[in-house]
Amino acid sequence: MNRHQSGGADTAGESRPIPPRDAVTALGLPAAALDADAKAYFEKCREKLGFVPNVLWAYAFDAAKLKAFIAMSDNLMLAPSGLSKLERELIAVTVSSANHCHYCLVAHGAGVRKYSGDPKLAETIVANYRAAPLDTRTRAMLDFAWKMTVEPWGIEEPDRAQLRAAGFSDRDIWDVAAVAGFFNMTNRVASATDMRPNEEYYSLGR
Amino acid sequence: MNRHQSGGADTAGESRPIPPRDAVTALGLPAAALDADAKAYFEKCREKLGFVPNVLWAYAFDAAKLKAFIAMSDNLMLAPSGLSKLERELIAVTVSSANHCHYCLVAHGAGVRKYSGDPKLAETIVANYRAAPLDTRTRAMLDFAWKMTVEPWGIEEPDRAQLRAAGFSDRDIWDVAAVAGFFNMTNRVASATDMRPNEEYYSLGR
Amino acid sequence: MNRHQSGGADTAGESRPIPPRDAVTALGLPAAALDADAKAYFEKCREKLGFVPNVLWAYAFDAAKLKAFIAMSDNLMLAPSGLSKLERELIAVTVSSANHCHYCLVAHGAGVRKYSGDPKLAETIVANYRAAPLDTRTRAMLDFAWKMTVEPWGIEEPDRAQLRAAGFSDRDIWDVAAVAGFFNMTNRVASATDMRPNEEYYSLGR
Amino acid sequence: MNRHQSGGADTAGESRPIPPRDAVTALGLPAAALDADAKAYFEKCREKLGFVPNVLWAYAFDAAKLKAFIAMSDNLMLAPSGLSKLERELIAVTVSSANHCHYCLVAHGAGVRKYSGDPKLAETIVANYRAAPLDTRTRAMLDFAWKMTVEPWGIEEPDRAQLRAAGFSDRDIWDVAAVAGFFNMTNRVASATDMRPNEEYYSLGR
Amino acid sequence: MNRHQSGGADTAGESRPIPPRDAVTALGLPAAALDADAKAYFEKCREKLGFVPNVLWAYAFDAAKLKAFIAMSDNLMLAPSGLSKLERELIAVTVSSANHCHYCLVAHGAGVRKYSGDPKLAETIVANYRAAPLDTRTRAMLDFAWKMTVEPWGIEEPDRAQLRAAGFSDRDIWDVAAVAGFFNMTNRVASATDMRPNEEYYSLGR
Amino acid sequence: MNRHQSGGADTAGESRPIPPRDAVTALGLPAAALDADAKAYFEKCREKLGFVPNVLWAYAFDAAKLKAFIAMSDNLMLAPSGLSKLERELIAVTVSSANHCHYCLVAHGAGVRKYSGDPKLAETIVANYRAAPLDTRTRAMLDFAWKMTVEPWGIEEPDRAQLRAAGFSDRDIWDVAAVAGFFNMTNRVASATDMRPNEEYYSLGR
Repeated sequence: MNRHQSGGADTAGESRPIPPRDAVTALGLPAAALDADAKAYFEKCREKLGFVPNVLWAYAFDAAKLKAFIAMSDNLMLAPSGLSKLERELIAVTVSSANHCHYCLVAHGAGVRKYSGDPKLAETIVANYRAAPLDTRTRAMLDFAWKMTVEPWGIEEPDRAQLRAAGFSDRDIWDVAAVAGFFNMTNRVASATDMRPNEEYYSLGR
Repeated sequence: MNRHQSGGADTAGESRPIPPRDAVTALGLPAAALDADAKAYFEKCREKLGFVPNVLWAYAFDAAKLKAFIAMSDNLMLAPSGLSKLERELIAVTVSSANHCHYCLVAHGAGVRKYSGDPKLAETIVANYRAAPLDTRTRAMLDFAWKMTVEPWGIEEPDRAQLRAAGFSDRDIWDVAAVAGFFNMTNRVASATDMRPNEEYYSLGR
Repeated sequence: MNRHQSGGADTAGESRPIPPRDAVTALGLPAAALDADAKAYFEKCREKLGFVPNVLWAYAFDAAKLKAFIAMSDNLMLAPSGLSKLERELIAVTVSSANHCHYCLVAHGAGVRKYSGDPKLAETIVANYRAAPLDTRTRAMLDFAWKMTVEPWGIEEPDRAQLRAAGFSDRDIWDVAAVAGFFNMTNRVASATDMRPNEEYYSLGR
Repeated sequence: MNRHQSGGADTAGESRPIPPRDAVTALGLPAAALDADAKAYFEKCREKLGFVPNVLWAYAFDAAKLKAFIAMSDNLMLAPSGLSKLERELIAVTVSSANHCHYCLVAHGAGVRKYSGDPKLAETIVANYRAAPLDTRTRAMLDFAWKMTVEPWGIEEPDRAQLRAAGFSDRDIWDVAAVAGFFNMTNRVASATDMRPNEEYYSLGR
Repeated sequence: MNRHQSGGADTAGESRPIPPRDAVTALGLPAAALDADAKAYFEKCREKLGFVPNVLWAYAFDAAKLKAFIAMSDNLMLAPSGLSKLERELIAVTVSSANHCHYCLVAHGAGVRKYSGDPKLAETIVANYRAAPLDTRTRAMLDFAWKMTVEPWGIEEPDRAQLRAAGFSDRDIWDVAAVAGFFNMTNRVASATDMRPNEEYYSLGR
Repeated sequence: MNRHQSGGADTAGESRPIPPRDAVTALGLPAAALDADAKAYFEKCREKLGFVPNVLWAYAFDAAKLKAFIAMSDNLMLAPSGLSKLERELIAVTVSSANHCHYCLVAHGAGVRKYSGDPKLAETIVANYRAAPLDTRTRAMLDFAWKMTVEPWGIEEPDRAQLRAAGFSDRDIWDVAAVAGFFNMTNRVASATDMRPNEEYYSLGR
């Protein structure tokens, strides 16, 4: 809601207090002093992205937790894989759409824009991946990720067989499962703590 | 997906044929010749918005249906009401978020940007209206719209009482119900026909 | 509950006040003076049906809203279409069954009785359309309407293909979608306002 | 669907074969020779009700199963209880509405008409018990039965406390639970076997 | 929670009062004096099982209800059938898993251990029957029981056809439906009354 | 299913091939050579637990993934926290119950037995945590974990307020969220890959 907009029926004012500048969640957990590794990592974020993602500030109250989160996140999203970086971001957004996770839709919608150069694709996946013009491989991958999210107990051999038929190796299937699983974690941590995305994400890649 | 991006793992090609320029849905229902009223209305859209919304082209195969849709839509979204135009767009996006409707999230996300001047608000409501900083009135309104969408059989007097407590008159409650009801219709018509939003919507108001 | 039945354990008394004779919803929105068109329309209802449906009285607080509702409703339910009037009523009842909408099940259950002459069919569709002895065409149509209602984000090309395989043209598919969409609107407006069916509907066509 | 109605768009023909006269379910389980007790019981049904409910014919392939079903059913629905017979029928219909059970809605909708003398009440409960004008006691009872049906794992002490606050004794609570539980069984046996209600039920008590 | 474990963060103390020794539900319904048949039956339980199942004590406040429950339960679980006793217990546990019924998972998990001699199988079915190594017949049977439990309105001829294709006769299908239906009743009676399993069940058959 | 049990109706044979000894998932991803750290860690598992949990073997195809998983898992389950180790296991089992995750219910059911010494508590939480005799603190914690699992978009300030009212600090709330989030990840990775628990888990702590 535009805070500068003056009153009348078009104004929806804020009833929740504006959090202080550095409040990245609803929890009072200020960042601890960063160790050398974390400092270097945050510096790299500023160089590459222009800012430090709030999820890292959220974990920064505890050095070991921050380190473990970065290690898993970077391994899943950036390490060599049969899945492209765009594909991993598409999984992130599809899972977050099912879970209605504000932080992750904003941050990884930006990720889809970054790797695809296509803001329309990002906005379509946020809404409903079924409405996007996807090839068979991508569609099979996102069907699997959606089902893992909303009905994990029902995933069985035929679901894996569909991925194999679409060209995914068993190692690729692991990666689809691991990325979809990871965002089912981060979506919930973000929702449970009211994690707020950096302002910069909204315009990134547009 | 950026169609111009060359191959490799980052490419998610299209398996569905690109629809011809004027294909606004998956149904083969070409627009009929427009009558004078429709022509004038479409012209007004081009002037004000820069283009004719695809939903109107979708209805344009039949003059009477187009006219009835425009009459109801304009009455709900533009006629005098205790609800501001922004509030009506917020309802549209909240309902469409629950229904994962691609067309309506894109078109009415743009509507929220237009009336609020706040792209971040639009993106937040698309994701999860609960994550937006809303005043008590707006929050009560969107809670009612969400419940109407996902559990309409459970709406009862206490739900209406919450709206009244938040300052809504009975006439306002009708308008909340009518707008939320309307998007539960259009969401479903859009999904059932694979209605595609105009390209222009994606960047409108950013 | 029979109000004349005397006490004891068999009496379930009313805790909600009996609404006054002309209260058709829980909202205090008295009908405005009807314009000539509305008067004529209401008169026609009395002639054909014996009464004016309460949904019209509900909209009658505002002439433009009443007019827009009548135009859309009549176009969908009565205008020429590849769908018979009975088929459109069957869609209305199937959608209303999924949404547990009291007003619409009573009013359109009567509609099914009127056009089919078969009270048993009406009662079966109210309960569960899958239990009715339906031909392939009708069954495909109601499967589509049900899915549109409970999982609209999941409607895709294979769902439309099933309608085409059952003999529906693209124009027919539009009409199925438009009617099913419409009752997803009216169900919710009725539930949101506690709209009460006319007493006459209960026995109509029995 | 009126089978005698001739063709055109208003005809929804049967694709499923008309079952033979005595086929009360989709299973080929002909009734065994009735023993003396069953004969007497069926005779009493004919005297009191005018016909033998199809559910009894469905169980009649096995004398022991028939006997056990009658014993439990009669105990729950007819034996002395703090719940009136009407209240027990109201529970039956509410549970069957949540489960969309055709057989039970038709048979016990007739039961509500029988004990209340109020066809409108029956039709309202079939649609949505929340729309009926119920006293606090009846409403609390049906809220409990609905929750038991759709979310049994969530029933806890506060749910029982609401029944006690509405005047139910612990013995009454048992009876509410037992009747609601029983129809969750019969709904499912009826749906699983495509049990068909006797034609006579549709008009009973109107 | 081990009541003997001393404090600290590892202690999760009880806030609900420990029910007296013979309290088998949350309802104050003490057992009535047992008649001769019930006494003999309870004695047989003690001989065969080592104890009287709490569900029988729960019904024992009323001789007719106890008798009717025993008759139906024994007929379904012990009478001759095309389903083995193990298969009937597997249905019981699968249904109870979908319904998260504590009493029935504990009691019939023990039943699976008893008839299969395989504690791992029991624990797997409690968690998710899809994860167990089952033959085609058993899998088809449990798919049917699960669907009957979570979506009874959707059971139709193709579901029965899958059972027939897996070798089930129509009589067997009845028994699958009757057993799955029965546990949908008992699960709900147990949850609605907070029925507590006998301590002995937990270790039975391990 | 007891494989040694001979035929007849009590036999439910395996249709899925018995996986080879070291197949811990449905994916063909053999463990890579372990590095020194992993070897030491696995050795420590054998010493403390008697075996190496299959989830570690599942990740062992890739040294970096194994290391990242161990780091996060150990930090969440074993590092200092306001939550006891038992409380963290209770969250694990509650989340896994909602998700019907076989691997995690077996492995962390054993975890609850280990830290509570109370097999009945473990079996109760597997079935339905609401049926366990829990103190206010533990109950609030598991309510939060359940809601995070089944309706993460609905977690808001009042949910956090309930934890604070039950004595949890903001740091404790983070830990509840992080542990509940983590098992929403591992449940899905386990289900997506058909991960099989070690045989030893079933009897551990009984």
